[in-house]
Amino acid sequence: MAKGDAAATTVATRPVLALVMGDPGGISAELTAKILSLPELRSAAHFVVIGDRRMLEEGAAVAAVDLDVDYRRSDDFSTEPALRPVFVDLANLDPADVTRGEATLAGGRFATENFRFALHLADEGRVAGICFTPFNKKAMRYAYPGYDDEIRFVSDVLSFKGKMREFNVLEKIWNARVTSHIPLKAVADHLSQDAILAEVELTSECLRLAGIDTPKIAVAGLNPHAGDGGSFGMEEIDIIEPAVARAKSEGYAVDGPFPADTVFLRALKEGFHAVLTMYHDQGQIAMKMMGFDKGVTMMGGLPFPLCTPAHGTAYDIAGRGVADVGASREAVLLAARMAARQNNQQGILHNTDK
Amino acid sequence: MAKGDAAATTVATRPVLALVMGDPGGISAELTAKILSLPELRSAAHFVVIGDRRMLEEGAAVAAVDLDVDYRRSDDFSTEPALRPVFVDLANLDPADVTRGEATLAGGRFATENFRFALHLADEGRVAGICFTPFNKKAMRYAYPGYDDEIRFVSDVLSFKGKMREFNVLEKIWNARVTSHIPLKAVADHLSQDAILAEVELTSECLRLAGIDTPKIAVAGLNPHAGDGGSFGMEEIDIIEPAVARAKSEGYAVDGPFPADTVFLRALKEGFHAVLTMYHDQGQIAMKMMGFDKGVTMMGGLPFPLCTPAHGTAYDIAGRGVADVGASREAVLLAARMAARQNNQQGILHNTDK
Repeated sequence: MAKGDAAATTVATRPVLALVMGDPGGISAELTAKILSLPELRSAAHFVVIGDRRMLEEGAAVAAVDLDVDYRRSDDFSTEPALRPVFVDLANLDPADVTRGEATLAGGRFATENFRFALHLADEGRVAGICFTPFNKKAMRYAYPGYDDEIRFVSDVLSFKGKMREFNVLEKIWNARVTSHIPLKAVADHLSQDAILAEVELTSECLRLAGIDTPKIAVAGLNPHAGDGGSFGMEEIDIIEPAVARAKSEGYAVDGPFPADTVFLRALKEGFHAVLTMYHDQGQIAMKMMGFDKGVTMMGGLPFPLCTPAHGTAYDIAGRGVADVGASREAVLLAARMAARQNNQQGILHNTDK
Repeated sequence: MAKGDAAATTVATRPVLALVMGDPGGISAELTAKILSLPELRSAAHFVVIGDRRMLEEGAAVAAVDLDVDYRRSDDFSTEPALRPVFVDLANLDPADVTRGEATLAGGRFATENFRFALHLADEGRVAGICFTPFNKKAMRYAYPGYDDEIRFVSDVLSFKGKMREFNVLEKIWNARVTSHIPLKAVADHLSQDAILAEVELTSECLRLAGIDTPKIAVAGLNPHAGDGGSFGMEEIDIIEPAVARAKSEGYAVDGPFPADTVFLRALKEGFHAVLTMYHDQGQIAMKMMGFDKGVTMMGGLPFPLCTPAHGTAYDIAGRGVADVGASREAVLLAARMAARQNNQQGILHNTDK
């Protein structure tokens, strides 16, 4: 399929995604250009790209791809589905000011401005979802000192009070977690039946949006051998088992708690769609062993999907044209799938231009 | 290579290993027969097998292998290296009394008796190491109610007061851990510089016995992202970093703490021989993802190597002749290697018959 020949009949029905240019010191510009050059992705979504035209063109040169983009000023663009991707040129970074392979204030400003712009578009219902190419946390903190992670930044920018959660997505399995960036010794005190149940609900909802009609979730235990009947800890008996029972009684296809060291192997073998882990590394160790750097991170809980490749800015290979677009491709496809279903099924979001 | 043709010149120099028949409800008898039929293993060690002749012969029938074994009574046998494996017939279980696929008191008695006999042989210096085919914990508890795990049983039988530790061994990487079967919330309180340093020492010693002259050990952090500079916990800064520094100053090739979710990937990539984890699942999740059911469990800290395949009794496939001898083969080879070096280098053990 040649670029731009998506049949006119499908043009209008594609979900509209904002595509955010990320940290300029790494591979984000190359990835953005590659995404825009893939016919499969242009068929899956209409892109409204946010960044600087000069950065994109440099990225295209590095990636050795041709661009076929409708460049617009930030005060003059539409997000209506169209044949060609729209590029909203914030004219906010000159490639001459970029130092490849470094986290800089200029880079952080560029990425936060682009991200902020896209978040407002989604908040206003002008795009149905967002993908972003990798950010660098250090650079983001230079530009926005309160930047802990994407969840915190999104909450700040949108004054969003709801509960956001990070999901880690591989083709065959999702990972959700009850606790995340807290000290290991604090994990047990953060577990409750309500917290587990809330994760089951949100995970099921996100999986359904992603196209899985009857999501099956495996729940991990907390302690070695899931406590071995209370020998190595009581949280399974006191908290996790009752939470699983409650979730079942509410109609969720959930099972566990299973010993953490085999829960992912079991989930893959028995056709679970997600594993709900109790703490960060319980899931991350397994996901990274399964090649999660090729996976997708999805922020759930917002009224629109927000996806990014799981890998980082890859400062070591920036500018060499060797960056693998695979995880970005998966991020776009997931966001497009979720945005389309959200539009169709729930009517939460729809494209309405100003 | 045909059975029994190990050159006479090497017969006398092979380390002598006790080979313990494990739980009779599972695949242990088949595995024992298979081990004894492999020329490679007969060349690597002289076996003194402990069990019941009838059980072994049934195992050989199931495994469809021929036995070439010197059957002896328990009051009349030598552990001197010889051409053929010696089978010490305790005459302690009639196959007619075995229910396949079940944990039974009879099975637990058989396995504990065999194990106990082998431990005394090793304690007396009559064998240089022990391998056992899989036990079933439930059956062991029927026979010996105080049976928590092998470490506890060995300590009881030998009145051993030293510190024993379980190592999980894959061909490319070992896993040692500072804490094991304790509740997750108790892990942080069990960490100390001394505890970490002791593990580094023992791990290095065991790796050297296994043939690695300069063992390199990667140390995991405790908290997400190894605490991210103290943002998610202080144990890295307060305990683990100083412990690693002390270990380095004592000449150990050790590095870390590294984030737990990538420490195994890093270790494989950078040529570390072992990962020292802070708690059970931190290592077990990664090891099981890497196929640890094909690996070996080694109990370190005793004056002789004690090895077993990492997989269990496999009640579901018992008696069908399909049990894979691969992990048992690795267990024998590791025990033989360690026993030989222990004999040669340290003189802790030597074969002296009564």
